Amino acid sequence: MYATKEIIERMVADRRHIHKRPEEGWTEFETTAFVVERLRSLGFEVLTGPKILNTAFVMGRDPELVKSAQERARQHGISEALLAEMDGWTGAVAVFDTGRPGPVTAFRMDLDCVCVQETDDPSHEANLGGYASERPGLMHACGHDGHTAVGLAVAEWVKEHADELCGRFKFIFQPAEEGTRGAEPLAESGVADDIDYLVCSHIGTGYKIGEIAVCHRGFLATTKIDVRFTGRAAHAGTAPEKGRSALLAAASCATLLSGISRSAQGDTRISIGRLVAGEGRNVVPVHAYMQLETRGTTEEVNQFMVENVHRIVEGTAKSFDVEASIEPVGHATVLEADQEVTDDLMAIAKEIPFVHKVERNDGITGSEDVTMICRRVRAHGGKVGFFIFGCNEHGHHKGDFCIQDEESLREAFEMDVRFVLRKNRR
Amino acid sequence: MYATKEIIERMVADRRHIHKRPEEGWTEFETTAFVVERLRSLGFEVLTGPKILNTAFVMGRDPELVKSAQERARQHGISEALLAEMDGWTGAVAVFDTGRPGPVTAFRMDLDCVCVQETDDPSHEANLGGYASERPGLMHACGHDGHTAVGLAVAEWVKEHADELCGRFKFIFQPAEEGTRGAEPLAESGVADDIDYLVCSHIGTGYKIGEIAVCHRGFLATTKIDVRFTGRAAHAGTAPEKGRSALLAAASCATLLSGISRSAQGDTRISIGRLVAGEGRNVVPVHAYMQLETRGTTEEVNQFMVENVHRIVEGTAKSFDVEASIEPVGHATVLEADQEVTDDLMAIAKEIPFVHKVERNDGITGSEDVTMICRRVRAHGGKVGFFIFGCNEHGHHKGDFCIQDEESLREAFEMDVRFVLRKNRR
Amino acid sequence: MYATKEIIERMVADRRHIHKRPEEGWTEFETTAFVVERLRSLGFEVLTGPKILNTAFVMGRDPELVKSAQERARQHGISEALLAEMDGWTGAVAVFDTGRPGPVTAFRMDLDCVCVQETDDPSHEANLGGYASERPGLMHACGHDGHTAVGLAVAEWVKEHADELCGRFKFIFQPAEEGTRGAEPLAESGVADDIDYLVCSHIGTGYKIGEIAVCHRGFLATTKIDVRFTGRAAHAGTAPEKGRSALLAAASCATLLSGISRSAQGDTRISIGRLVAGEGRNVVPVHAYMQLETRGTTEEVNQFMVENVHRIVEGTAKSFDVEASIEPVGHATVLEADQEVTDDLMAIAKEIPFVHKVERNDGITGSEDVTMICRRVRAHGGKVGFFIFGCNEHGHHKGDFCIQDEESLREAFEMDVRFVLRKNRR
Amino acid sequence: MYATKEIIERMVADRRHIHKRPEEGWTEFETTAFVVERLRSLGFEVLTGPKILNTAFVMGRDPELVKSAQERARQHGISEALLAEMDGWTGAVAVFDTGRPGPVTAFRMDLDCVCVQETDDPSHEANLGGYASERPGLMHACGHDGHTAVGLAVAEWVKEHADELCGRFKFIFQPAEEGTRGAEPLAESGVADDIDYLVCSHIGTGYKIGEIAVCHRGFLATTKIDVRFTGRAAHAGTAPEKGRSALLAAASCATLLSGISRSAQGDTRISIGRLVAGEGRNVVPVHAYMQLETRGTTEEVNQFMVENVHRIVEGTAKSFDVEASIEPVGHATVLEADQEVTDDLMAIAKEIPFVHKVERNDGITGSEDVTMICRRVRAHGGKVGFFIFGCNEHGHHKGDFCIQDEESLREAFEMDVRFVLRKNRR
Repeated sequence: MYATKEIIERMVADRRHIHKRPEEGWTEFETTAFVVERLRSLGFEVLTGPKILNTAFVMGRDPELVKSAQERARQHGISEALLAEMDGWTGAVAVFDTGRPGPVTAFRMDLDCVCVQETDDPSHEANLGGYASERPGLMHACGHDGHTAVGLAVAEWVKEHADELCGRFKFIFQPAEEGTRGAEPLAESGVADDIDYLVCSHIGTGYKIGEIAVCHRGFLATTKIDVRFTGRAAHAGTAPEKGRSALLAAASCATLLSGISRSAQGDTRISIGRLVAGEGRNVVPVHAYMQLETRGTTEEVNQFMVENVHRIVEGTAKSFDVEASIEPVGHATVLEADQEVTDDLMAIAKEIPFVHKVERNDGITGSEDVTMICRRVRAHGGKVGFFIFGCNEHGHHKGDFCIQDEESLREAFEMDVRFVLRKNRR
Repeated sequence: MYATKEIIERMVADRRHIHKRPEEGWTEFETTAFVVERLRSLGFEVLTGPKILNTAFVMGRDPELVKSAQERARQHGISEALLAEMDGWTGAVAVFDTGRPGPVTAFRMDLDCVCVQETDDPSHEANLGGYASERPGLMHACGHDGHTAVGLAVAEWVKEHADELCGRFKFIFQPAEEGTRGAEPLAESGVADDIDYLVCSHIGTGYKIGEIAVCHRGFLATTKIDVRFTGRAAHAGTAPEKGRSALLAAASCATLLSGISRSAQGDTRISIGRLVAGEGRNVVPVHAYMQLETRGTTEEVNQFMVENVHRIVEGTAKSFDVEASIEPVGHATVLEADQEVTDDLMAIAKEIPFVHKVERNDGITGSEDVTMICRRVRAHGGKVGFFIFGCNEHGHHKGDFCIQDEESLREAFEMDVRFVLRKNRR
Repeated sequence: MYATKEIIERMVADRRHIHKRPEEGWTEFETTAFVVERLRSLGFEVLTGPKILNTAFVMGRDPELVKSAQERARQHGISEALLAEMDGWTGAVAVFDTGRPGPVTAFRMDLDCVCVQETDDPSHEANLGGYASERPGLMHACGHDGHTAVGLAVAEWVKEHADELCGRFKFIFQPAEEGTRGAEPLAESGVADDIDYLVCSHIGTGYKIGEIAVCHRGFLATTKIDVRFTGRAAHAGTAPEKGRSALLAAASCATLLSGISRSAQGDTRISIGRLVAGEGRNVVPVHAYMQLETRGTTEEVNQFMVENVHRIVEGTAKSFDVEASIEPVGHATVLEADQEVTDDLMAIAKEIPFVHKVERNDGITGSEDVTMICRRVRAHGGKVGFFIFGCNEHGHHKGDFCIQDEESLREAFEMDVRFVLRKNRR
Repeated sequence: MYATKEIIERMVADRRHIHKRPEEGWTEFETTAFVVERLRSLGFEVLTGPKILNTAFVMGRDPELVKSAQERARQHGISEALLAEMDGWTGAVAVFDTGRPGPVTAFRMDLDCVCVQETDDPSHEANLGGYASERPGLMHACGHDGHTAVGLAVAEWVKEHADELCGRFKFIFQPAEEGTRGAEPLAESGVADDIDYLVCSHIGTGYKIGEIAVCHRGFLATTKIDVRFTGRAAHAGTAPEKGRSALLAAASCATLLSGISRSAQGDTRISIGRLVAGEGRNVVPVHAYMQLETRGTTEEVNQFMVENVHRIVEGTAKSFDVEASIEPVGHATVLEADQEVTDDLMAIAKEIPFVHKVERNDGITGSEDVTMICRRVRAHGGKVGFFIFGCNEHGHHKGDFCIQDEESLREAFEMDVRFVLRKNRR
């Protein structure tokens, strides 16, 4: 076992520290600071801010929200120097070169939380442990706190065992995974282009403590889109004919979107997850706002959905004589892992004593934006792999999500470290 | 009483003759021939064919249907000479000049039937009398046979009493009233431009034998529109994404059309009366055809509806990536009668012994394309009036529609003749 | 002129006092207190709280909102005694008996504001005068502050001229006119049952300073309805088939509601003014909430709309396998005034020197819930009338609504006082 | 080669004979008679009519159409005796027992044509050969004529080689495959329950001359459904509120059907292939008729679609206050073949000299109702297989569909005969 008691305790403490201060995508200033400071104290070279993001590819980022998050971070003790270095952009990439020839091996973690209220049930893990979210309506209910804690622990292990290792290492702490926003600008920055092996992982997703699944294919390509309709106000009683209802446009649009044709080229999804429209009961509604997403089992079939969305929104705007705007706010693609890494991960998982079930799972129908980094790495000749490590979670994105960090995080740590030893042993 | 037993018998015989050979709009070759020959035999100058129609304004006319109707008329004994004169166009206008100064007084009749199957109930009027429709699926179920018979009788009376009269007379036998198609091209021909007094009438519409209503305002402006969508075929199982469903486009379009905003500027209507779409269960539908109409209590508010129809059809075509075509196939406006004629008609109605109920009715919510001729006459300084004469009809456009012609037709005859005597007595 | 400089100044001051503290429907504790204290100081018997409301008929009242409004009023100095007397219910009725036989003459005012943010444009009337709303998002943008000020002034005048008058007087200060909520429970309390003459009025609505319109018919019957759909959550990527989308149900429902058939029985309206649905982009939406209203030129045709709403909501719930709830939250009927009062008001308006335009207007297509009180008064043998007095308003329910109170309020005061003198002069 | 020149000529002649007289599902009286007489002349025991169909499971059969088809067959020379034996039901099963122990080996053919007009292009195969369809609007454009000809040829071969064989044989000539109607009642008759090996095949579907594909999985489960809505007529101008539009109900229903949620349990389809609604432009439509189908990659996910169809139709009927009826008119399930037969068919295909391409294809996304017979055979312990044999078809269900019968039919003949020799060689 590489996961010593001490390492596990450190991971658990880190995860709980992060859990208390959840930050939504593009606002992870405190979390980034925590990561940066730790990694620098360990002697890593750490890049942050615009150095790891191609901002031309950033989507779904609200400048107002970022500004207030910077202020919050400032008040919570984050140094002006670090805030200035980040320059409004979250995430970090730590680099370490052993000085000896060998592959570039990398791990990717994600930093952001979800907009979910943590339960106040006293029997809930974080309430029992006293590390529940201090920020109302925000919670690490997808386990990214755990991912980050594991990444820090693996980084520390690598530094401590540097003498035994060769090659180089990259630890990617990505912002804004929720909404599949952060991976594309990070990939497009080129920071991952020299990676030979990229190992990605996620906690939970149906797997329990002691279970590991290796994913070779799967995950749905997805595009996140915001749609806004703008109509014209009028009194609903005295002049309805003068109004143009953005609400009715959005309603019809949502109905038509749900009816986009199935495709024989692959399985698809369309979700209109949120719709807010109208100003008052007796006024023809001027504003409508819709959050939606498409998915598909291939990049092409997801694109088919996106094209339909565009056409239907435009057609609806015409039908209802309203203005429409379409804003892409996130994007991920399908997973295409490499046989070598998949085989390695399967083999490693089977070696770990406290892992009692190992399986291949190529049928995950969720989405993960690390696929965008994987695609970039592979386009530059690198190889990628993905595994899921279990926890008994109660369901992701729910207020009672929990991960039993003592038992769960060590699974990922063990996988990562053993992968390092396979590829970068001196 | 001007309606002698002999006149009534002639009207009844004429009406029954026409009733046996119903002809739908733009195909009234036999009926036109009947009218033309009678009027010429009475010594009228009779215009027909393109002389009374501005064909640039013709809508809702199927050249194939016209061609087969000409052939049918030919086989039914209509002379080649008359068919050549008509040149594919139905309707006739008879003119008579007394030679003495006086106003131009005109009456308008309509020639066409509706597409309704006459009942085979033996107790039905036309079955009892042996003059039921010989043409399956076609029937004079709106009483235009009666209108025409009255028009012929009044024309005959005018000729017989020419010595007592002054001024000029026009008897307009309009084609294609159903679908509000024939009046506009007739008006636009200018044939009605010299009219001083135009008296229009309709049988039934809720009024019973012995009842007369004079309409000063009312009738809804209306536009008849055919919409066609053309999509792209594909096998519904193996390649649905390659198809573009004209059926779904039409379905969504129909739904949106029904939701066009009410207007505070006037009452409106939208009716999608027929929809035929698709080729087979397992093929993405290529063709969809919709018959619809708009109405409104003003010309403007009907136009508001028409504009919405256009916009929604175009928006829908965009949304569904199909082609759309919009064909206007009929148009009528609201009734605006002149106080002088309205007063005359009220006064006359009250004089007629066998009319026991007379009322003003400005709230008719059906449509009548004679309003298009009325508008033209008034634009040229003429005055118009409209009355309804009763019959016990069982409902218009139904297979058991009946009019008790002996008792009903004389009401209109009496109104018209007395109007002539008011305006054109020497 | 009865509107002396002193009276006008008092009205203007009262209106501005009220304008600073706008309160939405059912929360008018400060405004009610202001009215009650003034009227009691004048010697009126004043009923408030449950004594003037049949709470079984109350709609559209949020107990939480009321509770926080009580607390706010308390902090703003409203006495515990008065709050206890009101017992959570707003509105007041002041009664005065001259002791001499004569009719019961009544006036109705409304107390509530609308949810509109007052403009910060420095040239705006209330900003110039320093009496702009102190409560963000709330504003007297429909002139009820003016109505109340006029009511107080007329009440004071009546008391001061009591020696010249006979009969009895009622001044009704109704809560929650916006959303047509307060009139029905007030009427159903019976407090208006003994009224012989009820005079109602509204400021503005398109009429300018110096203009008065008397309404004999008009106003649309209306019903305000809240609809909620409850579906079932599911991850939009991994298990869409397990979800039931309340959002799509609401969207389809809104579309179908907009398509309720026009009626030949009268003009109608349907407005879906607000729709909020869904919890997040990638979750099948569980909750949807719709605010809508129907209107009609008759009570029957409005009822036709309401029945269609119910049927469509239920059918939609079935189609989408979601739960639906329908809550009526407001109701008003059409205006049916009495000829006597209408004639009086027309005559009075024409007598007033500073009123330069007087007209009948029976075509108002807005709604007013005083119609519910009118109906009750008439059912008990009383007679009612309604007039509009002008101001140059810039549009109701807008942030720059203004009323030039010095010139406008005296119009209504003069109308009311002269009506009193017509009916209750000793 | 077992397909001798003589056998090929016989197959080609039979196929062309059948091609001239195409008969749609449930009306294959002439084709059945042709098959029955041939097989009886060869000495087979032949069952027909109700003996091979459990009529309780019959769907999509129009008794009027059957009656007129019987009359047509009678006039075309089919004997009264055979018509009486068939008793209104088409299809035949031929049985032959070698008298020696051995497996029951069976082949299934289908008899019906599609409703497609054969092209009049003179270069079209059937026009060149003089055997084009004599029946307008009907054509063997799916190759069932070829299937039947092959079945007859294999049956003849089996009889001629009876001495070399053991076991028993069944040749199933199924009616009404189009619309997936005939297989289920045939399976439910039990006539296939004793089969040990069932070999099924189809011509074309994208494979060219000389190509054979063996299908182990694939084909979509499907349900064919007819939906009817019945509303209430009213004049669209004078009383729209009295009508209930079946057209708008169908339109909304079609829209909602297209929006049935995707499922993560499998791929699905929904096709509304035909919609006919309404009686005339100005009448609220009383009747609407929709033809639709659902499909799915599993029986369960197709059932999910069917349940949604039922719910949406019922909800729509409620929303629009119309009556609805839902009639299932066809059903097929997915293919589940047996490894043994699949392996046999792959091996055999590779042996045939004139077959130059052999592949496995488990991804067919069309539907085939023989899957219902397969399911029944397997439930009784039998094993099944499926292959596709090529032709250069120009697309199924099209007027220029062609099969180059000389070269194509021998592929299937060779496959079947070689299968017999594998399983039933003495």
